[in-house]
Amino acid sequence: MTGKLMQVVSSAHSYPLLIKQLWHTTLQQAPDQVIVYRDIARFTYRELRERIGRLASALERLGVDAGDTVGVLDWDSNRFLEAYFAVPMMGAVLQTVNVRLSPEQIAYTIDHANTSVLLVNDEFVPMLEGIRQQLPKIRTLIVMSDRTVPQTGGLTFAGEYEDLLRGASPGYDFPDFDENRLATTFYTTGTSGPPKGVSFSHRQLVLHSLAEMAFLGAAAKQGRLCRDDVYMPITPMFHAHAWGLPWTATLSGVKQVYPGRYDPAVLLKLIKTEGVTFTHCVPTILQRLLAAAAAADTDLTGLKMVIGGSELPKALARQALALGVDVFAGYGMSESAPLLCLSQVRSADLSGDPEAEAEIRTRAGLAAPLVDLRLVDAGRNEVPPDGKTQGEIVLRAPWLTQGYIGNADASDELWVGGYMRTGDVGIIGPDGYLRIVDRIKDVIKTGGEWVSSLQIEDLLSQREGVSEAAVIGVKDEQWGERPLALVVRDERTGRDLTDTQLKAHLKGFVEAGVISKYGIPDTILFVEALPKTSVGKFNKNELRHQYGSG
Amino acid sequence: MTGKLMQVVSSAHSYPLLIKQLWHTTLQQAPDQVIVYRDIARFTYRELRERIGRLASALERLGVDAGDTVGVLDWDSNRFLEAYFAVPMMGAVLQTVNVRLSPEQIAYTIDHANTSVLLVNDEFVPMLEGIRQQLPKIRTLIVMSDRTVPQTGGLTFAGEYEDLLRGASPGYDFPDFDENRLATTFYTTGTSGPPKGVSFSHRQLVLHSLAEMAFLGAAAKQGRLCRDDVYMPITPMFHAHAWGLPWTATLSGVKQVYPGRYDPAVLLKLIKTEGVTFTHCVPTILQRLLAAAAAADTDLTGLKMVIGGSELPKALARQALALGVDVFAGYGMSESAPLLCLSQVRSADLSGDPEAEAEIRTRAGLAAPLVDLRLVDAGRNEVPPDGKTQGEIVLRAPWLTQGYIGNADASDELWVGGYMRTGDVGIIGPDGYLRIVDRIKDVIKTGGEWVSSLQIEDLLSQREGVSEAAVIGVKDEQWGERPLALVVRDERTGRDLTDTQLKAHLKGFVEAGVISKYGIPDTILFVEALPKTSVGKFNKNELRHQYGSG
Repeated sequence: MTGKLMQVVSSAHSYPLLIKQLWHTTLQQAPDQVIVYRDIARFTYRELRERIGRLASALERLGVDAGDTVGVLDWDSNRFLEAYFAVPMMGAVLQTVNVRLSPEQIAYTIDHANTSVLLVNDEFVPMLEGIRQQLPKIRTLIVMSDRTVPQTGGLTFAGEYEDLLRGASPGYDFPDFDENRLATTFYTTGTSGPPKGVSFSHRQLVLHSLAEMAFLGAAAKQGRLCRDDVYMPITPMFHAHAWGLPWTATLSGVKQVYPGRYDPAVLLKLIKTEGVTFTHCVPTILQRLLAAAAAADTDLTGLKMVIGGSELPKALARQALALGVDVFAGYGMSESAPLLCLSQVRSADLSGDPEAEAEIRTRAGLAAPLVDLRLVDAGRNEVPPDGKTQGEIVLRAPWLTQGYIGNADASDELWVGGYMRTGDVGIIGPDGYLRIVDRIKDVIKTGGEWVSSLQIEDLLSQREGVSEAAVIGVKDEQWGERPLALVVRDERTGRDLTDTQLKAHLKGFVEAGVISKYGIPDTILFVEALPKTSVGKFNKNELRHQYGSG
Repeated sequence: MTGKLMQVVSSAHSYPLLIKQLWHTTLQQAPDQVIVYRDIARFTYRELRERIGRLASALERLGVDAGDTVGVLDWDSNRFLEAYFAVPMMGAVLQTVNVRLSPEQIAYTIDHANTSVLLVNDEFVPMLEGIRQQLPKIRTLIVMSDRTVPQTGGLTFAGEYEDLLRGASPGYDFPDFDENRLATTFYTTGTSGPPKGVSFSHRQLVLHSLAEMAFLGAAAKQGRLCRDDVYMPITPMFHAHAWGLPWTATLSGVKQVYPGRYDPAVLLKLIKTEGVTFTHCVPTILQRLLAAAAAADTDLTGLKMVIGGSELPKALARQALALGVDVFAGYGMSESAPLLCLSQVRSADLSGDPEAEAEIRTRAGLAAPLVDLRLVDAGRNEVPPDGKTQGEIVLRAPWLTQGYIGNADASDELWVGGYMRTGDVGIIGPDGYLRIVDRIKDVIKTGGEWVSSLQIEDLLSQREGVSEAAVIGVKDEQWGERPLALVVRDERTGRDLTDTQLKAHLKGFVEAGVISKYGIPDTILFVEALPKTSVGKFNKNELRHQYGSG
């Protein structure tokens, strides 16, 4: 083939995308920038990088090799950050153990991940004592503590974290290896069944870090992270990599603050004393933080905050804006490492009007660079981004879990036709912003249209006299499914409420173009109470079981 | 191995890093943003993406397949941008032909790249007619023109660009393929020998784009590119991918302006009428642009400009700053795709003092994310980033050419011990900024120290009475090499200048700690004139040939 160029680049001088590569520019350009752990410790990047070398040397001495999984049970700390790097950089896999699960679930995830070494904050020693017997694969325990003398209970530890680091060499030579090697694993809990394990490779996490940095940097005025920012997580590092920001912040060379267990008073103090400008949390924490700030009369102006985990209510967004918090929603999931979207506000939309801005800031947002995010209908055909048409959100991105560990069935359901299913139903506007309208399993497919149960519930709830409303789909010969509403009357104002009144109420929204006429339930039943899940959501599985046959 | 997690991620749902992936978010989030070509054409991103599909369909109809190389001869245009995407996205290789080379060199590069299809701006038809016989592998010519009727001379064209696009389908289905497939090739001219071809894969260019976006976004106040910017290249698209910014700007979804052939009046007009805020060029163009702006009394405030290609003189930087241009240097090379460093000024250093800022803005800069940039001594040991120790700059990065096409010897010299040699000698400060001090072949190795010939030349030139000074290394039994200076006296002020005076002058700099005592040449010769290369630099090869035996 003399007429052709060699078509594929040789890999003689290849550069694998490994987590260790995130350090090159930071060590050179920001060696003296600091990482803060509460009021307990401060390290420069140079020192932290040395500690990462020491941690790897210590783990190696304890017999950890590239085939092992090392779990961490800790609140957000410099130690956790050190493990975020050292464990994958030596070729092992980091399990970020969700310490908020029940002891039984924690034992399940540790055993299921085949984890053999645990780094344990001594706060969790009593809990760990209770499940030690269920962890036959654990061969090494390392204790970590903020106390002078760690509590060890009846457990046998191979050493104390700081002791081990002191005795180990900082000069661990982190090798090159296949960028597709696994780096991390953690577990996600659904509404049913045991926790499911997701996992991510070095390549995926490096690309996630780089794209997150690019995405946050592209914002002109609102929603950016730059070299002058100070980062602090308030989404736990054991949950979906804390948005991947510990890596992205390190790659960016910014000051970082780790707050330990989330105590609103400590968080507020760190925000003020360390000058934190960028963080992320769930709505509940935001609420607690705002209450604490109001009580302490703390001004939060200049604090950028990404909200994820569950929907950011508009009222909460307005409340945060009023206190100076530059709040905006994000969209991501455990299966996506997690970054997918951020609701950065474009410069032209920074009107200063809280109502208008809250409308944008509470959307799921704009997709991150390289994320191929589409909406598809039930036949898996793409639907247009017209701000009206609903579809299930499906994805391709360079950082999606390839499946659930040891769960072929769930993995098969996760990926369809080369795209990962999110299970969420959304609308994309002509401006590119995604809004989430429902979970796919709660959407009602009727007459070829998708009706959002959440939207109908929301509209019903707005009617005086309604305390709560749940909407489910029931089978229908002609339409496939039809919505059925279950309404709890308000004791004071709703005693005489009728289904005819509620249908008339909804009809108003049909005429206003808010919902389609298919959205009006044929049947509205009044009930005394609605069954809820452990996190306070309607238990629709149970409702469908009770009422689903129509 | 029941105790181990599966260690490598399966590639069942892999996401190859392909140039087509740069379009996902832009098409969704900025479909109506515009790409401007002079005062000739305007397209939205949606339209441009359609034209990319049409171009691929048209090329396919003309027999282009994934094994072919397609060359472009054009000034900066939307057409060139379309080819930047369409050609690699269909799996073919894009050759960006350097139209500033001599016709013989152009013929050499086209033939050497095995290019079979050429897209030709009709301005180059007369030149192409002259070399057509030297291009036996070219089987298809397509003409492009800004005129109503393109000039075709005696050449046979398969069609006119706009005609072909009109007749082709926008719905080309760009396939997935191996991300290591070649995407581009272009040629670099050195001081000797024929042009050398470098080449880059999809993976390399996607990573280059993402890292460039992240790097530009990380800057807090100075030297950033964000969603509100308007981009225009003034480094040709045929030269080192115009810093890769056409891809990065597209990935960022910003407005883009393509100025055609560089005419200072047109450039100034586009900057003002289209609101250009971000560009890049070589010092010579900056000089011409500043002169034109001064003559036309045009205010350039707010224009960010990266300077590359050759060193940005401090005086020119100050002049640009005085006219409102936010100028800063970059460092890159053809072999590195090209981005390596940018001299972004940290917020704390934005003093407003032109002298102090010019000192930072003229450095080679800070390395981009993931770039592993080191200095090594003659024994290839790393030297410290202490702001004093010189070393040859060597690199690992995810976007370095793997070698020169069909030139094994030069390729072998390029890569040593897993690192790419730049041939440049630099100093890295404790703040992470790189400064270039010399070319490795011009550095004088004496008594175990490296003396920068450029620095000694600069110091000699500062002495009254010196018109020009060149310094080379000559062999020395005891010291390895010793510097020898060749000085041209200034006709007016330097008639009585002696070598003793010049040595005393240099001794002052030794005492001030600016240079080491080894930097004072043993021999200073006065000559009538110094030999120069075609680009006006001292011809040191010739000087070494004449004087090198000492």
